[in-house]
Amino acid sequence: MSESLDLLVLGNAIVDVIARTDDAFLGAQGVTKGAMQLIDEERAEALFSVMGPATIVSGGSGANTAVGAALLGARTGFVGKVRDDELGGLFAHDLKATGVAFSVPAATDGPATARCFVLVTPDGERTMNTYLGACQGLTPADVDEALVAKSRVVYLEGYLWDPPAAKDAFRKAVQIAHTAGNAVALTLSDAFCVGRYREEFLGLIRDGSIDILFANIGELQSLYETDDPDAALKALRDERNGRGMHLLGLVTRSSEGAVVVKGGEIRSVPASPVRDLVDSTGAGDLFAAGFLAGHARGLDHIACARLGALAAAEVIQHIGARPQTDLVALAKAQGIV
Amino acid sequence: MSESLDLLVLGNAIVDVIARTDDAFLGAQGVTKGAMQLIDEERAEALFSVMGPATIVSGGSGANTAVGAALLGARTGFVGKVRDDELGGLFAHDLKATGVAFSVPAATDGPATARCFVLVTPDGERTMNTYLGACQGLTPADVDEALVAKSRVVYLEGYLWDPPAAKDAFRKAVQIAHTAGNAVALTLSDAFCVGRYREEFLGLIRDGSIDILFANIGELQSLYETDDPDAALKALRDERNGRGMHLLGLVTRSSEGAVVVKGGEIRSVPASPVRDLVDSTGAGDLFAAGFLAGHARGLDHIACARLGALAAAEVIQHIGARPQTDLVALAKAQGIV
Repeated sequence: MSESLDLLVLGNAIVDVIARTDDAFLGAQGVTKGAMQLIDEERAEALFSVMGPATIVSGGSGANTAVGAALLGARTGFVGKVRDDELGGLFAHDLKATGVAFSVPAATDGPATARCFVLVTPDGERTMNTYLGACQGLTPADVDEALVAKSRVVYLEGYLWDPPAAKDAFRKAVQIAHTAGNAVALTLSDAFCVGRYREEFLGLIRDGSIDILFANIGELQSLYETDDPDAALKALRDERNGRGMHLLGLVTRSSEGAVVVKGGEIRSVPASPVRDLVDSTGAGDLFAAGFLAGHARGLDHIACARLGALAAAEVIQHIGARPQTDLVALAKAQGIV
Repeated sequence: MSESLDLLVLGNAIVDVIARTDDAFLGAQGVTKGAMQLIDEERAEALFSVMGPATIVSGGSGANTAVGAALLGARTGFVGKVRDDELGGLFAHDLKATGVAFSVPAATDGPATARCFVLVTPDGERTMNTYLGACQGLTPADVDEALVAKSRVVYLEGYLWDPPAAKDAFRKAVQIAHTAGNAVALTLSDAFCVGRYREEFLGLIRDGSIDILFANIGELQSLYETDDPDAALKALRDERNGRGMHLLGLVTRSSEGAVVVKGGEIRSVPASPVRDLVDSTGAGDLFAAGFLAGHARGLDHIACARLGALAAAEVIQHIGARPQTDLVALAKAQGIV
């Protein structure tokens, strides 16, 4: 792997276990609709035993982004930790099969490959319960310095703040990337994740660790602790990093499309049309995939955001957070690439 | 479990590993499009390593039928063998979650839970490569005499002829069912499976082991070794079992609907409308599910076949061979139940 990469993603390596459900079940299980909640092994077993029939598809927020970007032609790699079990084998296979470089060795002992129980309600909303399992074994040793140095953009999941040692892997990657002159992107992942690590995320933005920020509007409002979406966007617009530079901010707003925040300007891009909203899992991940793949192709920010909107619209029209359609063909049909 | 059952299914306990592909890949892999081919562990690993990203859903022809019938209100049980691994856990969970009684203990050693690599081409056709794994451990000891005796219909997969000891389990179930005065149904499973066991299947039909026969037209033509679909239907119409009785025959013909063969008569039922043919896996299994659930509800054969056509149409409009829609609501909307 001597070639340079357009994109290197660090994220939790997770397999999604997806079941259809209804609001009553979410209520009975005491889970917060639309959020991602961390669960332990015992709770994972209890929840699985009462949920409906399941479909298993590789997932993980950052890995979904890596796969989407690779399918759109970006040279992409992934760093994350699985166990050497059946689901870990599926996860690694699916990265390889979509052209994502993945060489972190699977753990040979310890907890099983991480799984996220994704409960999809009839309105297409997804509610996630994640057992982190083997992800907790990701350490700085898994971050290959040469790989990071040759990746034009390093993309980091906010969720990486959850497993204890991953945070150090994250910081190591930031340092190597910036030393090599590469850009670092962060996704805020989830409004509750922002609630857990607000000060640290703001610190990363303000100390210059982050060049590109992805968030949905709820996450951004959580970051700036405001009920007003416009106030959150303005706060992001006015944000400057440690070198006095504006961030590039990409904010998704579900059916209202996305917003590009750059150089003191806020510009909107409409959502792509959706025939049937089936499962919203991965919408934000695929927006980031499309944006970053566009970036690798040298498109301007608005075209990048349109490519992101297109990829997001594809992934919410079926079960699972990995694309099932030829994204390049879709983008060509819409004249984006 | 002292209550009687409407339906007890004996089948291979298989998890489907589904990937989209194209005709060129099938050609390069030397597999016969549309058929089910048995593979060993080594070939399973080799095939998995080159196929595309996968979705994992519980499958198994008979198990799909059991789940469909249960979702349509039939009291249903399943007999088949998994290993105590992750995929075996998924298989058992999915039966339980859909109300199918399943109490055969998982094997604690030996080969892994069976998996079927389902390759779906853009035309919606599926091509299957099955590693039988733990299914080979199904023996007559797994057939609970009391359970079979209290099941109004015992349904057997033709595929059970493949793993060596399952054939004896199959024969044991037939004997108990008939002693208790219950009906025995057989599905021919696959034209190539018929090719492997033609004489034995004809023997089962003619010696009175089978009361109800499910087949698609290709399987029936293979059974009677004829290129002429009408000749195959006439041969089935004229078939008599050891007690001089006509069989009840149900023959599916893809988009041409289904045929009910009974008492010397051949009657047709149209296919249900299909908006998007996505993945034809499970069409025959769900036809049988609908038919048998209708039978349990006391519907006439034509209404049973319409219910079968409806369930088949649902399952081919998404990935995987387990229903994703409320089948009872669909059947009510069409006035069948």
